Amino acid sequence: MVRPKPLSGFPEFSPTGRIVEQRVLASLADTFELHGFGSIETRAVEPLEQLTRKGEIDKEVFVVRRLHAAADAADELGLHFDLTVPFARYVLEHSSELSFPFRRYQIQKAWRGERPQEGRYREFTQADVDIVGSETLAIHHDVELPLVTLEALEKLHVDFGVPPATMSVNNRQLSEGFYRGLGVEDHLAVLQLVDKLDKIGPQAVGDLLVNEVGLSRSAAEACLQLAGIRSGDASFVDKVLALGVEHPLLSAGLESLADVVTAAAAAVPGRLVADLKIARGLDYYTGTVYETTMAGYEAMGSISSGGRYDSLASDGRTTYPGVGLSIGVSRILVPLVGKGVLTASRPVPSCVLVAVDAEETRSVAIATATRLRARGIPCEVAPKADKFGKQIRYADRRGIPYVWFSNDEVKDIRSGEQLPADPDAWQPPAADLRPSVLSSPSA
Amino acid sequence: MVRPKPLSGFPEFSPTGRIVEQRVLASLADTFELHGFGSIETRAVEPLEQLTRKGEIDKEVFVVRRLHAAADAADELGLHFDLTVPFARYVLEHSSELSFPFRRYQIQKAWRGERPQEGRYREFTQADVDIVGSETLAIHHDVELPLVTLEALEKLHVDFGVPPATMSVNNRQLSEGFYRGLGVEDHLAVLQLVDKLDKIGPQAVGDLLVNEVGLSRSAAEACLQLAGIRSGDASFVDKVLALGVEHPLLSAGLESLADVVTAAAAAVPGRLVADLKIARGLDYYTGTVYETTMAGYEAMGSISSGGRYDSLASDGRTTYPGVGLSIGVSRILVPLVGKGVLTASRPVPSCVLVAVDAEETRSVAIATATRLRARGIPCEVAPKADKFGKQIRYADRRGIPYVWFSNDEVKDIRSGEQLPADPDAWQPPAADLRPSVLSSPSA
Repeated sequence: MVRPKPLSGFPEFSPTGRIVEQRVLASLADTFELHGFGSIETRAVEPLEQLTRKGEIDKEVFVVRRLHAAADAADELGLHFDLTVPFARYVLEHSSELSFPFRRYQIQKAWRGERPQEGRYREFTQADVDIVGSETLAIHHDVELPLVTLEALEKLHVDFGVPPATMSVNNRQLSEGFYRGLGVEDHLAVLQLVDKLDKIGPQAVGDLLVNEVGLSRSAAEACLQLAGIRSGDASFVDKVLALGVEHPLLSAGLESLADVVTAAAAAVPGRLVADLKIARGLDYYTGTVYETTMAGYEAMGSISSGGRYDSLASDGRTTYPGVGLSIGVSRILVPLVGKGVLTASRPVPSCVLVAVDAEETRSVAIATATRLRARGIPCEVAPKADKFGKQIRYADRRGIPYVWFSNDEVKDIRSGEQLPADPDAWQPPAADLRPSVLSSPSA
Repeated sequence: MVRPKPLSGFPEFSPTGRIVEQRVLASLADTFELHGFGSIETRAVEPLEQLTRKGEIDKEVFVVRRLHAAADAADELGLHFDLTVPFARYVLEHSSELSFPFRRYQIQKAWRGERPQEGRYREFTQADVDIVGSETLAIHHDVELPLVTLEALEKLHVDFGVPPATMSVNNRQLSEGFYRGLGVEDHLAVLQLVDKLDKIGPQAVGDLLVNEVGLSRSAAEACLQLAGIRSGDASFVDKVLALGVEHPLLSAGLESLADVVTAAAAAVPGRLVADLKIARGLDYYTGTVYETTMAGYEAMGSISSGGRYDSLASDGRTTYPGVGLSIGVSRILVPLVGKGVLTASRPVPSCVLVAVDAEETRSVAIATATRLRARGIPCEVAPKADKFGKQIRYADRRGIPYVWFSNDEVKDIRSGEQLPADPDAWQPPAADLRPSVLSSPSA
């Protein structure tokens, strides 16, 4: 084999980058579990007919078939392109084993055949957190889920130096109620045009609302005014009311969104704003919708999106409403690790290299390593009984901070300090025990 | 959607089973990291030409193509069927970022299109641990890798009740040297027939050795005698020497295998035996070979196999020898979880359910939960301000051991004991903090 080239859209981390990813994934899992969300994993494949059901996404699906399947065998399976379709199927398939409301997180890879670019990959890791009820799901979970997600992202910021996140929230009921209050029938058409605001600007959207959807110039103007409202507290409510539109759905949406914003302002100040232009495209959300940008990487798009579905899944007898968000782990980490913003303190788990005097006495070094490991200290034994200087350089090249010699002295190879130590008692400083994540925001 | 049916060969765990899997995977990763092995993950796909290179396995590969790829576009990618092919490619692609000998573990799913049966799945999780050198790799790693693997498996036995493992080890040099010492030219043909011993018996293998490979009856008999040798210590060496065959490769193989067995007898007594009939089929191993059975599940086949490759990978300039093993996590866990041998103490992470007096005071319960979480206690807030009896039953149904009331009293719902507690100080018993793995060997 000649040296292989990377495959575009399928990012892979070096061992150092992988350590960053491991720490980030463990942190996310920890936050989710502290909030009582349990882990599930689903198989990588789903029936193709389920993956292509919504039409919009079917060209991005990867089909999977056995190499030696009959040439005329129908394609039946595809790789999942998100974790929502598999989760909905899992809930239906396993419903008798689940207790509702069911709180789950799911950290897995997903695949899309789209053209790779920064923040868009053909294989990527998502971390989803959702709650799903049987028949009903209380509205307070629309407040809970973005707070759990923001807490998870804030922990990545504080512990590892991931840039801070800002979540923008809207409510489909609020928008629909407002449009209906204006007398608009086709509220989805309005929503789709409002979704283009960032791309084509308010002037063009206003013209399309008039010319394509048939709104009056003043109704179009009201829609644009609504879309322009944004606040980090509940003050958006008065601004909406000042537009003079009334509808029961609008009132319900305003109340729900005010709850989210008020709770977030207390729990994670400055991290969540009501932003009434957020539409989340054609996704089938029915209530609150969320999207999130990372400071300095806004152009890359949302790093965490989601919303409420009145029917995440249904088997004809029971309907399962849900609300949740998905964190784009690859979208966050591939650029940050690639640019060197995040790195690890060393590329290996080993804290100690146990030196070997001679091949004949390798067992002495192994015995020392065993005693260190018994107390949770990761170590490896030098692969070759080279001169000590060479063994120290071996440790240095791997970033291993300590070298242990057979006379039970341990050298910190950074300071050069060498001291007697007991393999059954010596403890490295906590910061040296495992590789840690380092950040250099200026990278 | 009607209720979906499970897909044969693609096992999925319930939340309880997934907790068992999470603990097992974390334990394996911990053992590997204590020994200085770092984690890598590779993409799920490899070029089809690499996956089908060895001929034997190509009918089992899943091809991956974009749904809307041109009808005449060639299939270029497939899902990896093990973690060795991707690792070899990763080593070549990333060699400039790696420091050799490179110690890595890799826990990921793999896919094969074969017919599902117990222990064989179309999607399965493997945990591989390997060491790879640049140009050379010392023979003592052939001792190190099985010991790391056995330590990892022994920890699963002691901590979780996974049945104990027995590893059988042989050495290809030993076999080849023995056959060559007998004057046999086609030593691989002999190896392939010896590999069939368990299936067709010594009589049939002996006949085939004579009639197909052309051995004399006495040479065939010697091969069968060699294959019958098995010992948990180095006594196999004398038994082999007593057969009166001599060859330099045989001597090298005997010495290497004796080292493995002697070291294992000291480190994990009774868990490793020299078994000179082990051949590992057509895999391209060149030295030590390993396979492992789980007590009570021998018929399922090997749960951990591997060996040494003189050339794990080569880019034409540099050759990378390697040695390592793969643990079949799904092969171990799917039957054990399915039969109820392993389960979790509860299906959710939550240790505490914080009760809610009324929807208006939900924020009080949330504040208590936040204080508990700040000290690492997983909890959830009751989804509905039902009567307390109903909230307690909700906790009971989920296996949550404690319910916290707004008067800052906490009830252990198993004993019924209810005591005042401080949300900033109360600590559950360590065994209650997180769900634990329970085993019932009689299940």
